[in-house]
Amino acid sequence: MENWLPTLITATPAEGYDLAVKLARVAVKMTQPDTAVRERLRPVYAEDADSLTAASHVVAVHFATVAAANNYWREAR
Amino acid sequence: MENWLPTLITATPAEGYDLAVKLARVAVKMTQPDTAVRERLRPVYAEDADSLTAASHVVAVHFATVAAANNYWREAR
Amino acid sequence: MENWLPTLITATPAEGYDLAVKLARVAVKMTQPDTAVRERLRPVYAEDADSLTAASHVVAVHFATVAAANNYWREAR
Amino acid sequence: MENWLPTLITATPAEGYDLAVKLARVAVKMTQPDTAVRERLRPVYAEDADSLTAASHVVAVHFATVAAANNYWREAR
Amino acid sequence: MENWLPTLITATPAEGYDLAVKLARVAVKMTQPDTAVRERLRPVYAEDADSLTAASHVVAVHFATVAAANNYWREAR
Amino acid sequence: MENWLPTLITATPAEGYDLAVKLARVAVKMTQPDTAVRERLRPVYAEDADSLTAASHVVAVHFATVAAANNYWREAR
Repeated sequence: MENWLPTLITATPAEGYDLAVKLARVAVKMTQPDTAVRERLRPVYAEDADSLTAASHVVAVHFATVAAANNYWREAR
Repeated sequence: MENWLPTLITATPAEGYDLAVKLARVAVKMTQPDTAVRERLRPVYAEDADSLTAASHVVAVHFATVAAANNYWREAR
Repeated sequence: MENWLPTLITATPAEGYDLAVKLARVAVKMTQPDTAVRERLRPVYAEDADSLTAASHVVAVHFATVAAANNYWREAR
Repeated sequence: MENWLPTLITATPAEGYDLAVKLARVAVKMTQPDTAVRERLRPVYAEDADSLTAASHVVAVHFATVAAANNYWREAR
Repeated sequence: MENWLPTLITATPAEGYDLAVKLARVAVKMTQPDTAVRERLRPVYAEDADSLTAASHVVAVHFATVAAANNYWREAR
Repeated sequence: MENWLPTLITATPAEGYDLAVKLARVAVKMTQPDTAVRERLRPVYAEDADSLTAASHVVAVHFATVAAANNYWREAR
């Protein structure tokens, strides 16, 4: 996983959001490296509203970081 | 979903708030892309006070980002 | 609800706090627009310590945003 | 409650921390204005480790705001 | 507890982290001043993974504040 | 544990992420110093989706701090 995060800079806000989603998922993978277990858990929490909200929350925290790194893509306006 | 987030800049704080709500919801859609499942979950958590508070929390985190991106709309004062 | 948030600027920290409370509540209204449902939920979570703490948490996140927008009302000191 | 928060500026970090505690509690009071109910809830959550941690979390968010408002009391070093 | 927090400035990141842990615990003490109760709660939540994660979360929020106060100890590099 | 955190500066975003994971885990170790207990808890929460999300959340908060400390590794772009 050495090259999974070369930079926080993205061309657009949407790409920055995708990066935030990735940042949220990598910590899960690091704690639970077994893909089979993660695959088993996914359908359960993907049908639980509170689990989905919690996942969205983590994305929000990472998006704040990525957005700041990109100066909020103000130039791209 | 490529063009769903062209910019974080909005004309007014209220539009920024709407964008924060959108940002919170997109992560849910990405984790649970099945519209039918999301529609099924909605009435349940929309009647649960804690679920509503959790959803509001995610909006708050995104609103902080959007507000910073817009320099808090200070010029608009 | 178009004009519900004309600005994040408030005259005093206390007014900023009131605005943070409002910001926390609006997301709940957007997710659960039915006033009758919200009225029904209110007495339940208002007697649950954890629900109250969670609500206070959301206010705290919004207050951080409003305070930053107002440069922490330092001039008003 | 009009004058409850005249400023975020405090003389010391410890006073800033006390203010953060106050900021966390006021939102609870606003949601549950009945003192008798709050008094009834207190002993319950004060003996629940997770409730205590959640309360401490809200204080942490407010302390971040108060600390920033005071430029982290760096001058006072 | 008047002098428990003279400054947010620490010599090293590790000391800043210790301070963050302290900041997280003080709010718990303020809500539950009875040492005997806290001692009774400790072994329970210290064996609950979610409680430990929640405690770590509060430390993270305070560490962000302490790190900012210290300009991230960049000079010490 | 005196030298466990000499600096928040890392060469790359990926190393910064690893540091965030470490920062999240150290608070757990401080609260539950018994390695045997932590080892016992790990398989339980590593198979609980909500526990994994909560752990990822703490990493996100620390990553925000580490990223800010490193000026978001903008130079490395």
